[in-house]
Amino acid sequence: MVPGAQVRETGAPAGQHTANLQFDLMTGAVAGPRLGRLVTSRGEVATPAFMPVGTRASVKTLTPGEVKGLGAQLVLVNAYHLYLRPGGETIRAAGGIHAFMGWDGPVLADSGGYQVFSLARLCSVDQQGATFHSHVDGSVHALSPEKVMEIQGALGADIAMPLDVCVPYPCERSQARRAVELTADWARRSRTSVSPRQALFAIVQGSTYPDLRRAAARDLADLDFPGYALGGLSVGEPRPALYAMLETTLPELPVTRPRYLMGVGAPLDLIEAVARGVDMFDSVYPSRAGRHGTALTRDGPISLRAARFRRDFRPIAEDCVCPACQGFSRAYLRHLLVAGEVLGQRLATVHNLQFTLHLLADARRAIAAGQFDNWREVQIQRYREGKSTAAAE
Amino acid sequence: MVPGAQVRETGAPAGQHTANLQFDLMTGAVAGPRLGRLVTSRGEVATPAFMPVGTRASVKTLTPGEVKGLGAQLVLVNAYHLYLRPGGETIRAAGGIHAFMGWDGPVLADSGGYQVFSLARLCSVDQQGATFHSHVDGSVHALSPEKVMEIQGALGADIAMPLDVCVPYPCERSQARRAVELTADWARRSRTSVSPRQALFAIVQGSTYPDLRRAAARDLADLDFPGYALGGLSVGEPRPALYAMLETTLPELPVTRPRYLMGVGAPLDLIEAVARGVDMFDSVYPSRAGRHGTALTRDGPISLRAARFRRDFRPIAEDCVCPACQGFSRAYLRHLLVAGEVLGQRLATVHNLQFTLHLLADARRAIAAGQFDNWREVQIQRYREGKSTAAAE
Repeated sequence: MVPGAQVRETGAPAGQHTANLQFDLMTGAVAGPRLGRLVTSRGEVATPAFMPVGTRASVKTLTPGEVKGLGAQLVLVNAYHLYLRPGGETIRAAGGIHAFMGWDGPVLADSGGYQVFSLARLCSVDQQGATFHSHVDGSVHALSPEKVMEIQGALGADIAMPLDVCVPYPCERSQARRAVELTADWARRSRTSVSPRQALFAIVQGSTYPDLRRAAARDLADLDFPGYALGGLSVGEPRPALYAMLETTLPELPVTRPRYLMGVGAPLDLIEAVARGVDMFDSVYPSRAGRHGTALTRDGPISLRAARFRRDFRPIAEDCVCPACQGFSRAYLRHLLVAGEVLGQRLATVHNLQFTLHLLADARRAIAAGQFDNWREVQIQRYREGKSTAAAE
Repeated sequence: MVPGAQVRETGAPAGQHTANLQFDLMTGAVAGPRLGRLVTSRGEVATPAFMPVGTRASVKTLTPGEVKGLGAQLVLVNAYHLYLRPGGETIRAAGGIHAFMGWDGPVLADSGGYQVFSLARLCSVDQQGATFHSHVDGSVHALSPEKVMEIQGALGADIAMPLDVCVPYPCERSQARRAVELTADWARRSRTSVSPRQALFAIVQGSTYPDLRRAAARDLADLDFPGYALGGLSVGEPRPALYAMLETTLPELPVTRPRYLMGVGAPLDLIEAVARGVDMFDSVYPSRAGRHGTALTRDGPISLRAARFRRDFRPIAEDCVCPACQGFSRAYLRHLLVAGEVLGQRLATVHNLQFTLHLLADARRAIAAGQFDNWREVQIQRYREGKSTAAAE
């Protein structure tokens, strides 16, 4: 169904172990839906997996216990944000990111390359690294690939991302090529400075230029990283371009390594990316949508602030078992959100994270049962039809 | 120790039952510390009791289950706020305030007199009621005592407060006298229009004029309400004035009715008011202080945002069993609060509410053991000394 789905690398071992991360691929190949398992010293993660985002060592509004209760097995934090505040050495003194934030499961720490190139005011980028003004207080900082590995070592996350160069969309081919080259060079340097206790992923850039993406993937694949991320996507490009880049890039990556699509978390994108062979995702979409009053359902998103929910005493979704749906009505959530009560943002976040985590769990079940294509079709149709209905109301 | 503490009304029945509220006084008299129990159809409340404030049908940042888990037995909501948003009829349609907000224990609904006279822009007050501009959208509303009872009926709280006239501090004697007269008239009118399923308290006004307070208390006592509130205090008057008003007013109230001091919740004020015979309290102080980064401890309040907590990996209080102290360090809370993460506000709220609820539970134990005077002295000294130490650091 997806080009390359049948190209199984014969003889690839079922499980590959690097220093601190083992990835077992149970079902799947270089493309097409895959069922796997990440094994870390802090626990296992069933893939395809969605990682709730705890940028500043907190999944917004929730305790780690709640995040775990919703079914999350892996959370993401951001090295750029934590470097600026409270500082890597503070987290090292706490005993690492797990002890600091009270999450005892596996953690992936993004480098913050994306933030350096979007949130901060950039001064310069050269072979050495990036110099920028902090978005917090305007102070000037220089991050090199080595410096980021030092911060990553202080955080002590199970999976670490190297510093990469992110380009906006759209961008000139020359700019995209430059980003690919620098990112690859930085990945090599990161590899020599990463802590042996951390699994370092490589990041494939290349904007929406298929040949750049393909070349970047091949180059990095040769270096055999314990995992591969696709960066620079979900930054404003049309959906067909996103899907095309997945189809172009994923077959170039080693079948036995996990593939992580950065910044993707909307339901249809998750389904389409799983269909093409992605194993890991992170995105603020579910939690941010929740805080803004949008609840995700199998029948599309609904705006809880809408007047039609004023006296709607049903839960967000009748069949949902999340704590928000088990205890509270749409009318109450609407009231809280309209009044600006934090509990409304919190309950909508709870629902949306549970929805997203359960969507991936359903996808895993469908893959295991050999029913993924059918499941995908049903989910997409239902979501799209519900979305049109909601828009028409 | 407090004037009037020994004036026990001999022959007063141990428990007095009105339509929907029973108050059992186990220990105590017209003044001095009292140990009691409010019995409602939705559960019992040990007194002296602190009510967490859920102004807009939400104790800020927390679920009802969490509020219950912290030890709260009674919560407060505000009729003025809920009348404006989402509207009394919406809550009636939900099946009442308990069903709407998911709290199955007893609820006390303040009338919002205080809010009409402070938060809203007032147009006029006369015998009939108050006309004001909504603080939400500027729309003009008129509330009479009867209209407030209609809203209270829609909410269906177990205990309802009537519309009263609140005056600022300081205020002219003539203004205070007028507030007392109108409040008493409105209390009489509210009594004839309150739902028979709700217990209506009367509110004693009189600013800091002892004779006005005494006369107001006597007048309302003659009408035998199921409970009495002291309003118009904790509005900026010096602490000695607050305590003097308690000593003046409480001996005038029926010994067998619960006395509720509105708006008081700082630790030392709670202890001093219990010492003088108050049974019930509400205040945003613990939760608001928490949201602003102040944590309450037996050794005084501490500002969690202080730089000295940057690498302090101890909990707020070593001996505290609240979920915040059981799972998270001062350094982490400081980080969350400085970064503006809602979880920081939430955890500080959890700690401060638990602290306040436990303080009252300790007071009850001390009264029951006949050790209140000693307990009070130790607590106050420790809190004051710790406060000076913290300020000096």
